[in-house]
Amino acid sequence: MSFSSSLLEQAVQELSRLPGIGKKTALRLALHLVKANPDEVHNLGNALIQMRDEMKLCKYCFNMADQEVCNICSNSMRKRNIICVVESIRDVIAIETTQQFSGLYHVLGGLISPLDGIGPDQLYIDALVERVKRDEVDELIFALNPNIQGDTTLFYIHKKLGDLPVKITTISRGIAFGGELEYADEMTLARSIQNRQPVTLYVGMKG
Amino acid sequence: MSFSSSLLEQAVQELSRLPGIGKKTALRLALHLVKANPDEVHNLGNALIQMRDEMKLCKYCFNMADQEVCNICSNSMRKRNIICVVESIRDVIAIETTQQFSGLYHVLGGLISPLDGIGPDQLYIDALVERVKRDEVDELIFALNPNIQGDTTLFYIHKKLGDLPVKITTISRGIAFGGELEYADEMTLARSIQNRQPVTLYVGMKG
Repeated sequence: MSFSSSLLEQAVQELSRLPGIGKKTALRLALHLVKANPDEVHNLGNALIQMRDEMKLCKYCFNMADQEVCNICSNSMRKRNIICVVESIRDVIAIETTQQFSGLYHVLGGLISPLDGIGPDQLYIDALVERVKRDEVDELIFALNPNIQGDTTLFYIHKKLGDLPVKITTISRGIAFGGELEYADEMTLARSIQNRQPVTLYVGMKG
Repeated sequence: MSFSSSLLEQAVQELSRLPGIGKKTALRLALHLVKANPDEVHNLGNALIQMRDEMKLCKYCFNMADQEVCNICSNSMRKRNIICVVESIRDVIAIETTQQFSGLYHVLGGLISPLDGIGPDQLYIDALVERVKRDEVDELIFALNPNIQGDTTLFYIHKKLGDLPVKITTISRGIAFGGELEYADEMTLARSIQNRQPVTLYVGMKG
């Protein structure tokens, strides 16, 4: 690509570093910003810089936070005895958006994956065990992705917890709403038959 | 979407204002930037702000420029007697990338489109006519999109130029390289037969 302006070239280059944004998309975005209201561009640029500079991880749950403790951990309305264990901040946002869980979270920061060189020490697993020991936690709900890394991580944490008096559950697997039986994989279908549930008009998830 | 950090929320909100970027993509980009090198995020944010604040339109061709005159117009190696007329900056970049044109450009800033409320006065048409009168322009190559707006604009400029001694051409239409005859529309196919060309080993576009 050949540019008549080095300012445009630099903006395109920086935008195309983002994941999933190629040169053509970067150019489209840059030319949009060239014509946009200057305030809008300032807001965008400053929001990104400010987020990177001021963002913290919550000292309890390792979720993204503006202060030392995140909005969820500092919310006195939330149940403190149930912790949902997730891989990433993205999962917290997904579960929060359902508005069906009123406990706390613990973000592991990844899953154990020896092939990718990620061991237990790089994740916030010790902090989770500490939390269970220190606070009065009755239940850990594991909401990890259903793959080998997720299962390994669950198994490792389960062992680490040893005899601590905490109930361990995972979110249920089964056919998704709107999914069709015909296209479901065998394991999911088999598991959803094993874990069949009594019929109620509305099965809500209670945290 | 529910956020635990207002910094993240604001970044996602600003990113999702961009064309073609929805909330989910914006979140993916924001979470990438959270983990990215702080320098990278500063570079991105500042490149966008700097581009918007310092960018100028070239006073001759209305292309994007860092100074008053763009790199192309100020390049003494380029032929000054041939001007390629295009709709937007994007088209200049596309043609420059081919490295087959060594004349100058004139960016109209749009096409005449009464339905969208765009008349000739909103485009840099008068400036083009002035350029043809003032400079010694031998040829105007119109590289506009082949639609009704493009044809209307070409027709309008043609009339405006009146008796000025300038040759007017348009880029050739035809079957694209890699295109298949079977799937070409009738008009393109008909036009490409009318405008058939003698066979040479390589037909280069010379500006």
